[in-house]
Amino acid sequence: MEASQAEATADEDVPHPAKKRTRDPEARRAAIVEAARATFAEQGFAKATIREVARRAGVTHGLVIRHFGSKERLFLASVPSSHNLMAEIAGDPRSLPTRVARSYVRRMSRSGGCDPFVALIRAVASGEGAAERLFAVMQEESLEMYRQVIPGPDIDQRVASVGAYLIGVTFSRYVLKSGSLAEMSDDELVRHLTPNLRGILLP
Amino acid sequence: MEASQAEATADEDVPHPAKKRTRDPEARRAAIVEAARATFAEQGFAKATIREVARRAGVTHGLVIRHFGSKERLFLASVPSSHNLMAEIAGDPRSLPTRVARSYVRRMSRSGGCDPFVALIRAVASGEGAAERLFAVMQEESLEMYRQVIPGPDIDQRVASVGAYLIGVTFSRYVLKSGSLAEMSDDELVRHLTPNLRGILLP
Repeated sequence: MEASQAEATADEDVPHPAKKRTRDPEARRAAIVEAARATFAEQGFAKATIREVARRAGVTHGLVIRHFGSKERLFLASVPSSHNLMAEIAGDPRSLPTRVARSYVRRMSRSGGCDPFVALIRAVASGEGAAERLFAVMQEESLEMYRQVIPGPDIDQRVASVGAYLIGVTFSRYVLKSGSLAEMSDDELVRHLTPNLRGILLP
Repeated sequence: MEASQAEATADEDVPHPAKKRTRDPEARRAAIVEAARATFAEQGFAKATIREVARRAGVTHGLVIRHFGSKERLFLASVPSSHNLMAEIAGDPRSLPTRVARSYVRRMSRSGGCDPFVALIRAVASGEGAAERLFAVMQEESLEMYRQVIPGPDIDQRVASVGAYLIGVTFSRYVLKSGSLAEMSDDELVRHLTPNLRGILLP
Protein backbone atom coordinates (compact mmCIF):
# COMPACT_ATOMS: atom_id res chain seq x y z
CA MET A 1 0.00 0.00 0.00
CA GLU A 2 2.90 2.40 0.61
CA ALA A 3 4.18 4.29 -2.40
CA SER A 4 7.73 3.03 -1.99
CA GLN A 5 6.48 -0.52 -1.88
CA ALA A 6 4.14 0.00 -4.78
CA GLU A 7 6.92 1.34 -6.94
CA ALA A 8 9.31 -1.47 -6.11
CA THR A 9 10.00 -3.69 -9.09
CA ALA A 10 12.67 -5.92 -7.60
CA ASP A 11 12.88 -9.37 -9.09
CA GLU A 12 11.87 -12.10 -6.67
CA ASP A 13 15.19 -13.85 -7.05
CA VAL A 14 17.11 -10.63 -6.47
CA PRO A 15 15.02 -9.01 -3.76
CA HIS A 16 15.48 -5.41 -2.77
CA PRO A 17 18.40 -5.55 -0.32
CA ALA A 18 16.63 -3.46 2.33
CA LYS A 19 13.73 -5.86 2.40
CA LYS A 20 15.62 -9.11 2.22
CA ARG A 21 15.30 -10.07 5.84
CA THR A 22 11.70 -8.93 6.38
CA ARG A 23 10.42 -10.51 3.17
CA ASP A 24 10.22 -14.12 4.18
CA PRO A 25 7.77 -16.23 2.15
CA GLU A 26 4.97 -15.81 4.70
CA ALA A 27 5.33 -12.02 4.76
CA ARG A 28 5.46 -11.90 0.99
CA ARG A 29 2.30 -13.93 0.72
CA ALA A 30 0.61 -11.59 3.21
CA ALA A 31 1.76 -8.56 1.20
CA ILE A 32 0.34 -10.05 -1.99
CA VAL A 33 -2.99 -10.79 -0.31
CA GLU A 34 -3.11 -7.27 1.11
CA ALA A 35 -2.34 -5.79 -2.32
CA ALA A 36 -4.98 -8.03 -3.88
CA ARG A 37 -7.63 -6.89 -1.39
CA ALA A 38 -6.94 -3.25 -2.24
CA THR A 39 -6.77 -3.85 -5.98
CA PHE A 40 -9.97 -5.90 -6.20
CA ALA A 41 -11.81 -3.45 -3.98
CA GLU A 42 -10.73 -0.44 -6.06
CA GLN A 43 -10.91 -1.87 -9.56
CA GLY A 44 -13.42 -4.69 -9.29
CA PHE A 45 -12.74 -8.26 -10.26
CA ALA A 46 -12.78 -7.92 -14.05
CA LYS A 47 -10.43 -4.94 -14.31
CA ALA A 48 -7.95 -5.96 -11.64
CA THR A 49 -4.79 -7.61 -12.99
CA ILE A 50 -2.23 -9.84 -11.39
CA ARG A 51 0.40 -7.45 -12.72
CA GLU A 52 -1.11 -4.59 -10.72
CA VAL A 53 -1.31 -6.70 -7.59
CA ALA A 54 2.33 -7.70 -8.02
CA ARG A 55 3.32 -4.08 -8.53
CA ARG A 56 1.60 -2.98 -5.32
CA ALA A 57 3.05 -5.85 -3.34
CA GLY A 58 6.53 -5.12 -4.71
CA VAL A 59 6.97 -8.62 -6.11
CA THR A 60 7.08 -10.12 -9.57
CA HIS A 61 4.16 -11.33 -11.59
CA GLY A 62 5.73 -14.80 -11.55
CA LEU A 63 5.80 -14.92 -7.78
CA VAL A 64 2.08 -14.14 -7.55
CA ILE A 65 1.35 -16.91 -10.03
CA ARG A 66 3.60 -19.31 -8.16
CA HIS A 67 1.77 -18.58 -4.88
CA PHE A 68 -1.80 -18.41 -6.16
CA GLY A 69 -1.98 -19.89 -9.66
CA SER A 70 -4.72 -17.65 -11.09
CA LYS A 71 -6.65 -14.45 -10.58
CA GLU A 72 -9.62 -16.46 -9.30
CA ARG A 73 -7.53 -18.16 -6.64
CA LEU A 74 -5.91 -14.88 -5.72
CA PHE A 75 -9.35 -13.37 -5.26
CA LEU A 76 -10.51 -16.23 -3.07
CA ALA A 77 -7.40 -15.76 -0.95
CA SER A 78 -8.12 -12.04 -0.63
CA VAL A 79 -11.59 -12.46 0.82
CA PRO A 80 -11.72 -13.72 4.39
CA SER A 81 -9.86 -16.96 4.25
CA SER A 82 -11.46 -20.28 5.03
CA HIS A 83 -9.11 -20.34 7.98
CA ASN A 84 -10.56 -17.09 9.38
CA LEU A 85 -14.09 -18.08 8.61
CA MET A 86 -13.66 -21.41 10.37
CA ALA A 87 -12.30 -19.62 13.43
CA GLU A 88 -15.48 -17.54 13.53
CA ILE A 89 -17.87 -20.39 12.95
CA ALA A 90 -16.31 -23.02 15.17
CA GLY A 91 -17.44 -22.94 18.80
CA ASP A 92 -20.69 -22.82 20.68
CA PRO A 93 -23.52 -22.55 18.13
CA ARG A 94 -25.50 -20.40 20.59
CA SER A 95 -22.99 -17.57 20.36
CA LEU A 96 -22.51 -18.01 16.60
CA PRO A 97 -24.87 -15.17 15.61
CA THR A 98 -22.94 -12.73 17.80
CA ARG A 99 -19.62 -13.90 16.40
CA VAL A 100 -20.80 -13.67 12.80
CA ALA A 101 -22.21 -10.17 13.37
CA ARG A 102 -19.02 -8.94 15.08
CA SER A 103 -16.77 -10.53 12.51
CA TYR A 104 -18.72 -9.09 9.57
CA VAL A 105 -18.83 -5.57 11.03
CA ARG A 106 -15.18 -5.62 12.08
CA ARG A 107 -14.07 -6.71 8.65
CA MET A 108 -16.14 -4.14 6.74
CA SER A 109 -15.14 -1.42 9.16
CA ARG A 110 -11.45 -2.22 8.83
CA SER A 111 -11.61 -1.93 5.04
CA GLY A 112 -13.78 1.19 5.22
CA GLY A 113 -16.31 -0.50 2.97
CA CYS A 114 -13.59 -1.10 0.36
CA ASP A 115 -13.80 -4.81 0.70
CA PRO A 116 -13.42 -7.39 -2.06
CA PHE A 117 -16.86 -8.63 -1.02
CA VAL A 118 -18.31 -5.30 -2.18
CA ALA A 119 -16.37 -5.53 -5.43
CA LEU A 120 -17.67 -9.06 -5.93
CA ILE A 121 -21.29 -8.04 -5.38
CA ARG A 122 -20.83 -5.29 -7.96
CA ALA A 123 -19.17 -7.69 -10.38
CA VAL A 124 -21.90 -10.30 -10.06
CA ALA A 125 -24.59 -7.64 -10.50
CA SER A 126 -22.80 -6.48 -13.65
CA GLY A 127 -23.11 -9.98 -15.03
CA GLU A 128 -19.44 -10.98 -14.90
CA GLY A 129 -19.46 -14.74 -15.31
CA ALA A 130 -16.18 -15.29 -13.50
CA ALA A 131 -17.49 -13.33 -10.51
CA GLU A 132 -20.61 -15.46 -10.41
CA ARG A 133 -18.57 -18.64 -10.30
CA LEU A 134 -16.36 -17.19 -7.56
CA PHE A 135 -19.36 -16.21 -5.52
CA ALA A 136 -20.79 -19.69 -5.84
CA VAL A 137 -17.47 -21.21 -4.72
CA MET A 138 -17.37 -18.89 -1.70
CA GLN A 139 -20.91 -19.84 -0.77
CA GLU A 140 -20.17 -23.53 -1.03
CA GLU A 141 -17.03 -23.17 1.10
CA SER A 142 -18.75 -21.31 3.90
CA LEU A 143 -21.67 -23.71 3.78
CA GLU A 144 -19.30 -26.63 4.31
CA MET A 145 -18.00 -24.99 7.47
CA TYR A 146 -21.38 -24.12 8.90
CA ARG A 147 -22.49 -27.71 8.36
CA GLN A 148 -19.76 -28.84 10.73
CA VAL A 149 -21.01 -26.60 13.53
CA ILE A 150 -24.78 -26.38 13.29
CA PRO A 151 -26.99 -29.41 12.98
CA GLY A 152 -30.38 -29.54 11.36
CA PRO A 153 -31.92 -30.77 8.14
CA ASP A 154 -32.40 -27.31 6.64
CA ILE A 155 -28.95 -25.93 7.44
CA ASP A 156 -28.22 -25.28 3.75
CA GLN A 157 -31.27 -23.05 3.46
CA ARG A 158 -30.54 -21.23 6.71
CA VAL A 159 -26.92 -20.53 5.77
CA ALA A 160 -28.05 -19.35 2.33
CA SER A 161 -30.43 -16.94 4.03
CA VAL A 162 -27.73 -15.62 6.34
CA GLY A 163 -25.60 -15.07 3.26
CA ALA A 164 -28.45 -13.30 1.49
CA TYR A 165 -29.08 -11.11 4.52
CA LEU A 166 -25.43 -10.05 4.71
CA ILE A 167 -25.36 -9.43 0.95
CA GLY A 168 -28.36 -7.12 1.36
CA VAL A 169 -26.85 -5.35 4.36
CA THR A 170 -23.62 -4.85 2.42
CA PHE A 171 -25.57 -3.57 -0.55
CA SER A 172 -27.51 -1.07 1.59
CA ARG A 173 -24.61 0.12 3.71
CA TYR A 174 -21.67 0.06 1.31
CA VAL A 175 -23.08 0.17 -2.22
CA LEU A 176 -26.29 2.21 -1.94
CA LYS A 177 -25.05 3.99 1.20
CA SER A 178 -28.45 5.27 2.24
CA GLY A 179 -31.08 4.35 4.80
CA SER A 180 -30.91 3.23 8.42
CA LEU A 181 -28.36 0.49 7.84
CA ALA A 182 -25.94 3.01 6.35
CA GLU A 183 -26.42 5.41 9.25
CA MET A 184 -25.74 3.00 12.11
CA SER A 185 -22.45 3.02 13.96
CA ASP A 186 -20.49 -0.22 13.95
CA ASP A 187 -21.70 -1.06 17.46
CA GLU A 188 -25.30 -0.32 16.59
CA LEU A 189 -24.99 -2.54 13.53
CA VAL A 190 -23.65 -5.45 15.60
CA ARG A 191 -26.56 -5.06 18.05
CA HIS A 192 -29.02 -4.85 15.17
CA LEU A 193 -27.67 -7.81 13.20
CA THR A 194 -27.19 -10.27 16.03
CA PRO A 195 -30.85 -11.09 16.85
CA ASN A 196 -31.73 -11.18 13.16
CA LEU A 197 -28.89 -13.59 12.39
CA ARG A 198 -29.95 -15.68 15.39
CA GLY A 199 -33.52 -15.81 14.12
CA ILE A 200 -32.36 -17.06 10.72
CA LEU A 201 -29.62 -19.45 11.88
CA LEU A 202 -31.13 -20.88 15.06
CA PRO A 203 -34.89 -20.72 14.76
CA MET B 1 -45.58 -7.04 -25.58
CA GLU B 2 -47.12 -8.48 -28.73
CA ALA B 3 -45.32 -7.78 -31.95
CA SER B 4 -48.32 -6.08 -33.52
CA GLN B 5 -48.58 -3.76 -30.55
CA ALA B 6 -44.86 -3.16 -30.40
CA GLU B 7 -44.79 -2.16 -34.02
CA ALA B 8 -47.71 0.24 -33.72
CA THR B 9 -46.68 3.81 -34.19
CA ALA B 10 -50.10 5.42 -34.20
CA ASP B 11 -50.17 8.97 -32.97
CA GLU B 12 -52.04 9.38 -29.72
CA ASP B 13 -54.43 11.91 -31.23
CA VAL B 14 -55.15 9.63 -34.17
CA PRO B 15 -55.21 6.25 -32.48
CA HIS B 16 -55.13 3.04 -34.38
CA PRO B 17 -58.78 2.51 -35.36
CA ALA B 18 -58.83 -1.09 -34.15
CA LYS B 19 -57.72 -0.01 -30.71
CA LYS B 20 -59.77 3.10 -30.30
CA ARG B 21 -62.40 1.67 -28.03
CA THR B 22 -60.15 -0.47 -25.85
CA ARG B 23 -57.55 2.22 -25.36
CA ASP B 24 -59.21 4.34 -22.72
CA PRO B 25 -56.78 6.42 -20.61
CA GLU B 26 -56.64 3.83 -17.83
CA ALA B 27 -55.85 0.97 -20.22
CA ARG B 28 -53.23 3.07 -21.96
CA ARG B 29 -51.58 3.90 -18.70
CA ALA B 30 -51.56 0.21 -17.80
CA ALA B 31 -50.05 -0.65 -21.20
CA ILE B 32 -47.30 1.92 -20.69
CA VAL B 33 -46.52 0.59 -17.22
CA GLU B 34 -46.43 -2.97 -18.56
CA ALA B 35 -44.11 -1.92 -21.39
CA ALA B 36 -41.92 -0.05 -18.90
CA ARG B 37 -41.61 -3.11 -16.65
CA ALA B 38 -40.46 -5.23 -19.56
CA THR B 39 -38.10 -2.59 -20.93
CA PHE B 40 -36.42 -1.77 -17.60
CA ALA B 41 -36.09 -5.46 -16.78
CA GLU B 42 -34.50 -6.28 -20.13
CA GLN B 43 -32.31 -3.24 -20.67
CA GLY B 44 -31.68 -1.91 -17.17
CA PHE B 45 -32.44 1.58 -16.02
CA ALA B 46 -29.67 3.48 -17.80
CA LYS B 47 -30.16 2.00 -21.25
CA ALA B 48 -33.95 1.96 -21.29
CA THR B 49 -35.52 4.89 -23.13
CA ILE B 50 -38.97 6.42 -22.97
CA ARG B 51 -39.04 6.08 -26.74
CA GLU B 52 -38.65 2.31 -26.49
CA VAL B 53 -41.34 2.08 -23.81
CA ALA B 54 -43.69 4.13 -25.97
CA ARG B 55 -42.95 1.91 -28.95
CA ARG B 56 -43.76 -1.25 -27.03
CA ALA B 57 -46.93 0.23 -25.58
CA GLY B 58 -48.00 1.45 -29.00
CA VAL B 59 -48.32 5.05 -27.91
CA THR B 60 -46.37 8.24 -28.59
CA HIS B 61 -43.39 9.48 -26.67
CA GLY B 62 -45.43 12.57 -25.78
CA LEU B 63 -48.15 10.52 -24.17
CA VAL B 64 -45.68 8.74 -21.92
CA ILE B 65 -44.24 12.08 -20.87
CA ARG B 66 -47.71 13.48 -20.26
CA HIS B 67 -48.58 10.53 -18.01
CA PHE B 68 -45.33 10.12 -16.16
CA GLY B 69 -43.18 13.22 -16.65
CA SER B 70 -39.76 11.54 -16.63
CA LYS B 71 -37.95 8.23 -16.89
CA GLU B 72 -37.47 8.23 -13.11
CA ARG B 73 -41.19 8.59 -12.47
CA LEU B 74 -41.96 5.99 -15.09
CA PHE B 75 -39.62 3.60 -13.36
CA LEU B 76 -41.20 4.22 -9.97
CA ALA B 77 -44.58 3.54 -11.54
CA SER B 78 -43.29 0.29 -13.03
CA VAL B 79 -42.16 -1.20 -9.74
CA PRO B 80 -44.96 -2.30 -7.42
CA SER B 81 -46.99 0.82 -6.93
CA SER B 82 -47.42 2.48 -3.56
CA HIS B 83 -51.03 1.49 -3.92
CA ASN B 84 -50.17 -2.21 -4.18
CA LEU B 85 -47.58 -2.01 -1.45
CA MET B 86 -50.03 -0.33 0.91
CA ALA B 87 -52.57 -3.06 0.22
CA GLU B 88 -49.96 -5.63 1.32
CA ILE B 89 -48.80 -3.79 4.38
CA ALA B 90 -52.13 -2.59 5.74
CA GLY B 91 -53.91 -5.03 8.03
CA ASP B 92 -53.05 -7.11 11.05
CA PRO B 93 -49.33 -6.68 11.79
CA ARG B 94 -49.17 -10.29 13.00
CA SER B 95 -49.85 -11.61 9.53
CA LEU B 96 -47.65 -9.00 7.85
CA PRO B 97 -44.61 -11.29 7.45
CA THR B 98 -46.73 -13.88 5.63
CA ARG B 99 -48.25 -11.25 3.38
CA VAL B 100 -44.87 -9.69 2.55
CA ALA B 101 -43.37 -13.11 1.77
CA ARG B 102 -46.29 -14.13 -0.44
CA SER B 103 -46.43 -10.82 -2.21
CA TYR B 104 -42.68 -10.80 -2.91
CA VAL B 105 -42.65 -14.38 -4.21
CA ARG B 106 -45.79 -13.91 -6.31
CA ARG B 107 -44.40 -10.79 -7.92
CA MET B 108 -41.01 -12.27 -8.74
CA SER B 109 -42.58 -15.47 -9.98
CA ARG B 110 -44.99 -13.63 -12.25
CA SER B 111 -42.16 -11.73 -13.90
CA GLY B 112 -39.98 -14.84 -14.09
CA GLY B 113 -37.21 -12.96 -12.31
CA CYS B 114 -37.33 -10.26 -15.01
CA ASP B 115 -38.48 -7.64 -12.57
CA PRO B 116 -37.52 -3.97 -12.55
CA PHE B 117 -36.34 -4.57 -8.99
CA VAL B 118 -33.64 -6.89 -10.36
CA ALA B 119 -32.70 -4.29 -12.97
CA LEU B 120 -32.49 -1.66 -10.26
CA ILE B 121 -30.22 -3.78 -8.07
CA ARG B 122 -27.94 -4.31 -11.06
CA ALA B 123 -28.00 -0.60 -11.89
CA VAL B 124 -27.18 0.47 -8.34
CA ALA B 125 -24.37 -2.08 -8.16
CA SER B 126 -22.99 -0.68 -11.42
CA GLY B 127 -22.81 2.73 -9.79
CA GLU B 128 -25.57 4.45 -11.74
CA GLY B 129 -26.33 7.59 -9.76
CA ALA B 130 -29.91 7.88 -10.98
CA ALA B 131 -30.60 4.31 -9.90
CA GLU B 132 -29.22 5.02 -6.45
CA ARG B 133 -31.55 7.97 -6.01
CA LEU B 134 -34.50 5.91 -7.24
CA PHE B 135 -33.69 3.14 -4.83
CA ALA B 136 -33.51 5.62 -1.96
CA VAL B 137 -36.90 7.06 -2.94
CA MET B 138 -38.43 3.57 -3.05
CA GLN B 139 -37.00 2.77 0.37
CA GLU B 140 -38.37 5.97 1.86
CA GLU B 141 -41.82 5.37 0.36
CA SER B 142 -42.12 1.84 1.67
CA LEU B 143 -40.80 2.95 5.05
CA GLU B 144 -43.56 5.56 5.29
CA MET B 145 -46.15 2.86 4.76
CA TYR B 146 -44.70 0.41 7.25
CA ARG B 147 -44.61 3.18 9.85
CA GLN B 148 -48.37 3.48 9.60
CA VAL B 149 -48.89 -0.19 10.37
CA ILE B 150 -46.20 -1.30 12.80
CA PRO B 151 -45.40 0.59 15.97
CA GLY B 152 -42.06 0.66 17.72
CA PRO B 153 -39.13 3.02 18.14
CA ASP B 154 -36.81 1.10 15.85
CA ILE B 155 -39.23 0.51 13.00
CA ASP B 156 -36.94 2.34 10.54
CA GLN B 157 -34.11 -0.06 11.29
CA ARG B 158 -36.34 -3.12 11.11
CA VAL B 159 -37.86 -2.11 7.78
CA ALA B 160 -34.38 -1.36 6.43
CA SER B 161 -33.33 -4.87 7.44
CA VAL B 162 -36.35 -6.44 5.76
CA GLY B 163 -35.42 -4.51 2.65
CA ALA B 164 -31.82 -5.67 2.88
CA TYR B 165 -32.92 -9.27 3.36
CA LEU B 166 -35.16 -9.17 0.27
CA ILE B 167 -32.39 -7.48 -1.73
CA GLY B 168 -30.06 -10.33 -0.77
CA VAL B 169 -32.64 -12.99 -1.56
CA THR B 170 -33.27 -11.35 -4.94
CA PHE B 171 -29.55 -11.20 -5.57
CA SER B 172 -29.07 -14.88 -4.71
CA ARG B 173 -32.13 -16.21 -6.53
CA TYR B 174 -32.39 -13.97 -9.59
CA VAL B 175 -28.95 -12.42 -10.15
CA LEU B 176 -26.48 -15.05 -8.95
CA LYS B 177 -29.00 -17.87 -9.49
CA SER B 178 -27.15 -20.42 -7.41
CA GLY B 179 -27.47 -21.91 -3.96
CA SER B 180 -30.44 -23.06 -1.88
CA LEU B 181 -32.48 -19.90 -2.36
CA ALA B 182 -32.31 -20.30 -6.12
CA GLU B 183 -33.34 -23.95 -5.91
CA MET B 184 -36.48 -23.56 -3.80
CA SER B 185 -39.92 -23.70 -5.35
CA ASP B 186 -42.12 -20.64 -4.87
CA ASP B 187 -44.03 -22.33 -2.05
CA GLU B 188 -40.85 -23.41 -0.31
CA LEU B 189 -39.52 -19.87 -0.56
CA VAL B 190 -42.67 -18.43 1.03
CA ARG B 191 -42.38 -20.94 3.90
CA HIS B 192 -38.68 -20.16 4.29
CA LEU B 193 -39.02 -16.37 4.19
CA THR B 194 -42.02 -15.97 6.47
CA PRO B 195 -40.43 -16.81 9.85
CA ASN B 196 -37.28 -14.88 8.95
CA LEU B 197 -39.28 -11.80 8.00
CA ARG B 198 -41.28 -12.20 11.22
CA GLY B 199 -38.08 -12.35 13.26
CA ILE B 200 -36.81 -9.14 11.71
CA LEU B 201 -40.09 -7.18 11.64
CA LEU B 202 -41.74 -8.33 14.87
CA PRO B 203 -39.01 -9.36 17.29
